[in-house]
Amino acid sequence: MEVAARERPGKPGVAPTLDQMDAVTIVDGHLIWQTRPDPEPAADELLVAVRSAGINGADLLQRRGFYPAPAGAPADIPGLEFAGEVVGTGSSVQRFQVGDRVMAVVAGGAQAELVAVPEQTVLPVPDTIGWEEAGGFAEVYSTAYDALFTQADLTAGERVLISGAAGGVGTAGVQIAHAAGAFVVASVRNADMHDSVRALGADEVIEPGEVANCGPYDVSLELVGAPGLTVALDALATGGRIVVIGIGGGANVELNLLAVMNKRARIGGSTLRSRPVGEKAEVARAVEAHVLPLLASGQIRVPVAATFPMEDATAGYERFSAGAKLGKVVLVNR
Amino acid sequence: MEVAARERPGKPGVAPTLDQMDAVTIVDGHLIWQTRPDPEPAADELLVAVRSAGINGADLLQRRGFYPAPAGAPADIPGLEFAGEVVGTGSSVQRFQVGDRVMAVVAGGAQAELVAVPEQTVLPVPDTIGWEEAGGFAEVYSTAYDALFTQADLTAGERVLISGAAGGVGTAGVQIAHAAGAFVVASVRNADMHDSVRALGADEVIEPGEVANCGPYDVSLELVGAPGLTVALDALATGGRIVVIGIGGGANVELNLLAVMNKRARIGGSTLRSRPVGEKAEVARAVEAHVLPLLASGQIRVPVAATFPMEDATAGYERFSAGAKLGKVVLVNR
Repeated sequence: MEVAARERPGKPGVAPTLDQMDAVTIVDGHLIWQTRPDPEPAADELLVAVRSAGINGADLLQRRGFYPAPAGAPADIPGLEFAGEVVGTGSSVQRFQVGDRVMAVVAGGAQAELVAVPEQTVLPVPDTIGWEEAGGFAEVYSTAYDALFTQADLTAGERVLISGAAGGVGTAGVQIAHAAGAFVVASVRNADMHDSVRALGADEVIEPGEVANCGPYDVSLELVGAPGLTVALDALATGGRIVVIGIGGGANVELNLLAVMNKRARIGGSTLRSRPVGEKAEVARAVEAHVLPLLASGQIRVPVAATFPMEDATAGYERFSAGAKLGKVVLVNR
Repeated sequence: MEVAARERPGKPGVAPTLDQMDAVTIVDGHLIWQTRPDPEPAADELLVAVRSAGINGADLLQRRGFYPAPAGAPADIPGLEFAGEVVGTGSSVQRFQVGDRVMAVVAGGAQAELVAVPEQTVLPVPDTIGWEEAGGFAEVYSTAYDALFTQADLTAGERVLISGAAGGVGTAGVQIAHAAGAFVVASVRNADMHDSVRALGADEVIEPGEVANCGPYDVSLELVGAPGLTVALDALATGGRIVVIGIGGGANVELNLLAVMNKRARIGGSTLRSRPVGEKAEVARAVEAHVLPLLASGQIRVPVAATFPMEDATAGYERFSAGAKLGKVVLVNR
């Protein structure tokens, strides 16, 4: 592959070392910033110097050993999304070239100085968007778009419940649902966040305990899991759709099939990480067509609650776990 | 409304009595054939002299008091489908006229000499189809078509599991899924029925205990409820869809949301009876466009396991409950 002459990211003046990078590495449940072999991009992949990489709930699960990386992804380098500059291109790469600003969802390995990524899953970073925002865009907007529109067929005028609306996926979901003409009911536990979520486009911001009384919902985006599902089904409109994309509150739920039948309900779930490259590419093209223009125009944004240097990933993960944040926690290479 | 000069159905030579008919009537859990007031059709309704009316599981539930008729339907006359001749038309009726052979799904009241039915929910009976088949067509084919195609998006080349495939909805589902190019796996408890179900177009006919080993299924049509759902989810393909349209085996099921997420599964359910007239009309138009041509051409049929005179409804219901039948039990006015 062609690799551009480059400096080590974040280390101006240090000559490029073509076979070693630093990366966040999971060692016995700890996050160690240590030297690792450079990723080796395949013919259809880009090598990207990572500028920023958002933290997601899945990273915390992976650190605790509960959510191993799928085959083909680095087993011990976390990170499902990043933004950065292309520094190398495989022989069959067509669209992007060295120097391009890109961002993507990957199956792992993004919290490092370098990442290899299949070209077809990559999105261009709009000129107006800085690295911090870009690094926290791909996973949450892809997840929210796929869940709300591809899985749940949300359309203008429908009433959508977004639970956990202050978080990364939640803030993304509120904004794109609002942009698409839906009536957004946002459930947010922390009252201090209510005004900020309203400012993102939520028509109503409620406490989790009020969900039952603010329906019926045509679509419910379930980020918490079992506890929310029963309530959401009770408050679902006829023909309503529930999409589960988080189970932090529990995975097993007792479901009443008669209620599902009577409401003609649809309950689905989704993860991005385990999908094959071709399907990730489909999601990327949908996001590029339907979400990226809104980001470029400023109609939606990535709220960044905090940033941490990549080598201080431990502090970033702690901030993520502490909650009471609007949007993303992003790690940056400086 | 205009009412044609007519004889009492099944009573040649008896002059029409314009305000009284006989009907199957639920009295303290018994089915009594007794005189009832004629139904009074609205401006957009047809008055139909019922020739035949299929029995469905919902009728048995209603007889036992578990499934009350929705508002607007006769509270104590069962029957969700029928075929017959138009004998009267409301003032705004446009498409059908007296003498036309029609069939439809209704919210109740079909097991009688006369039924009133909104014109827009009615299907014409193809010339090639006799009354017995026609009387058992509407509910099961509408249910199967709506579940497999409208709810579950079944397409050619997909593998579909149809549980309880020897029954009314099951035999309909096997035939239309086969006609649409799906690979049909039919689960049938009674081994004596396996050859007959294979002859309807099932590619594989299996015992219920074999379901787990014959996947993965892109679509699963669940006619039994809770016991089948867990097995179907385990054997579901990535992106697979389960549609629940029967809960005779239980309504409450413990659902693993992580499995739903990892498979990007969709679990839905549906009933026809409770839908408003406009939505029943949508289903009727879809069935007319996509299923009726197959019936008219002989590519699909309505297997009729047994017929009983309408006044012997009790015997018909007993036959329905006894199981070990291929297709429908139909009541006929003679």
